[in-house]
Amino acid sequence: MFKSELTEILQIDYPIIQAPMAGGVTTPELVAAVSNSGGLGSIGAGYMTPEQIRVHIKKVKELTSKPFAINLFVPSKFEVTKSEMESASQNLQSIRTELNVIQDDVEVPIYENMVKTFNEQIKLIIEEKVPVCSFTFGVPSLEVIETLKKNKIIVVGTATTVGEAAEVEKSGMDIVVLQGSEAGGHRGNFMHGDQESLIGLMSLIPQVADQVEIPVIAAGGIMDGRGLMASLCLGAKGVQMGTAFLTCEESGAHQVHKKTILQASEDQTVLTKAVSGKTARGLNNQFIVEAEELQTAFPEFPVQNALTQSIRKAAAQQNKPEYMSLWSGQSPRLAREQTVAELMEKVIFDALNIINTN
Amino acid sequence: MFKSELTEILQIDYPIIQAPMAGGVTTPELVAAVSNSGGLGSIGAGYMTPEQIRVHIKKVKELTSKPFAINLFVPSKFEVTKSEMESASQNLQSIRTELNVIQDDVEVPIYENMVKTFNEQIKLIIEEKVPVCSFTFGVPSLEVIETLKKNKIIVVGTATTVGEAAEVEKSGMDIVVLQGSEAGGHRGNFMHGDQESLIGLMSLIPQVADQVEIPVIAAGGIMDGRGLMASLCLGAKGVQMGTAFLTCEESGAHQVHKKTILQASEDQTVLTKAVSGKTARGLNNQFIVEAEELQTAFPEFPVQNALTQSIRKAAAQQNKPEYMSLWSGQSPRLAREQTVAELMEKVIFDALNIINTN
Repeated sequence: MFKSELTEILQIDYPIIQAPMAGGVTTPELVAAVSNSGGLGSIGAGYMTPEQIRVHIKKVKELTSKPFAINLFVPSKFEVTKSEMESASQNLQSIRTELNVIQDDVEVPIYENMVKTFNEQIKLIIEEKVPVCSFTFGVPSLEVIETLKKNKIIVVGTATTVGEAAEVEKSGMDIVVLQGSEAGGHRGNFMHGDQESLIGLMSLIPQVADQVEIPVIAAGGIMDGRGLMASLCLGAKGVQMGTAFLTCEESGAHQVHKKTILQASEDQTVLTKAVSGKTARGLNNQFIVEAEELQTAFPEFPVQNALTQSIRKAAAQQNKPEYMSLWSGQSPRLAREQTVAELMEKVIFDALNIINTN
Repeated sequence: MFKSELTEILQIDYPIIQAPMAGGVTTPELVAAVSNSGGLGSIGAGYMTPEQIRVHIKKVKELTSKPFAINLFVPSKFEVTKSEMESASQNLQSIRTELNVIQDDVEVPIYENMVKTFNEQIKLIIEEKVPVCSFTFGVPSLEVIETLKKNKIIVVGTATTVGEAAEVEKSGMDIVVLQGSEAGGHRGNFMHGDQESLIGLMSLIPQVADQVEIPVIAAGGIMDGRGLMASLCLGAKGVQMGTAFLTCEESGAHQVHKKTILQASEDQTVLTKAVSGKTARGLNNQFIVEAEELQTAFPEFPVQNALTQSIRKAAAQQNKPEYMSLWSGQSPRLAREQTVAELMEKVIFDALNIINTN
């Protein structure tokens, strides 16, 4: 019933991909549970060192023999002066004081180092024969894509507009994930501005499906069998779900983050650059409100991300959701506290029910 | 196949409603063609005088014996001082000069007069026994709703969040239209702010369907059988399509407006208050860019609307899309130049195809 070129390429039973949420959410237990349930688990490795990735992959492989994916951030150039950074850091001082955070000297991220790390990550993924490698924040070099494909690794890109999806296809990638405006976490736009690329999935999926040949995966606000079936009707071959997996038992998200989502409503998410310097969707809280009051423009990603790290860490340790980054898509009312197996079973059961009643 | 409580209540064959676009788009020919094709045509009467409405209804009735709807704007209070209005008007002067528009004294809209007109509109709708009356920009008084229902008129509300949909249900209305963030034209939010109420349909439909008992109609970016089936999967009982009908032959939209949509892409719409003072989605153009450069905050609806009227009129007469209001949802790539009958037939045909291949 759910078989398609997508499930064929990825060698999975159900066209359900667990979104590669970075920052500790995608524990080996979560990734393996998704793959063992017939979907595709994904390691969110954007912030991991090659050594951390190696350990993570090893653990996933111990827990499942099924295919899984790994996701990397494509490094992009950014400009920041020392004084901009100091001023942005100074603006956060009142929040640090509230949390009793003593800010050490922040290491300025250096683009060349990020590229070096990225290349090491790619090398490792090839060595470890990870079945699927997905990318966010742009299209990697054609050389990288070709090398991965030569090594029989399926390559997946992320797009937020028709133009970006066409670019992903042109680069030779096998599959494109379409991130709708509903999606939680960082926006993946890399050709269009933040506003122009906020397209709802009801509009985005069919317009992309008409223009590209590679299989399309829908991402953003999809939490259940209704979202899966709707996405398939619109022309997607599968779905990627983030928030739905984030509140699962196996996820490594902070308990307070899970609990806040489970109690939230659809009108409580906002788009902000305050956390990382790149626009992302999460539940509104004191940190976002204060940071945006203190400053209107933030240093580019990953500079702001480095500046706020100690705040987010302290907030997590102190169980203070007001100062954590509470990434969430626009469907928190559909989130449940359950195991991955329970979620997967329910999605498939509900989807089959929809098919049978039509 | 498409029969449900919604088609039963509205006495229509297919769960497809033509959105009540104001400003001359919903000609009697358009409205009647939709109803004659088995959907529900709607007169966008928000800006019409009672006398204009009477003439319009008469023409529709000459062209169809099927049910049709009429849409009204619920008046809401606004505050504007004479100096604010003069300053806002002055800011538009450079645009007027470009178009050789001589601005007469603009009549300041008066809330009490709007309420008076609204009550006359309601009276007329009852006299004319219009089968369905829908509302935008809020919930009318319980007295108005009860009077309409007593006269066997089906009452439809518009909502952009779960909270607003619950409010529509609580007021006793029969049906709720859910306006997703994808939708073109004015935003219908009346309880939540512009940002919080921008929810994509993939998120909005299931979260509302879980909370209200009355039938839900999905609106925003839906243009074809894929959007119809996706909406039904998500829990809607039908769809409301605007842009898809706007480019039809029977629509009264300006030829230049139609042509611009037919050539547009999904990343070209923006949300702006520059045209009317109320946030609306349309294709970006010179007017929006210039007006937003000249001013950051606009007088509230309908004051700004009154101020820009002569500009829009002149732009239309001079066939200048750069200064017209080019309302459009986020799916312009799916728009076609065709008759209403062709569009309706294709939507149903494609939807049946989707059902049969699942």
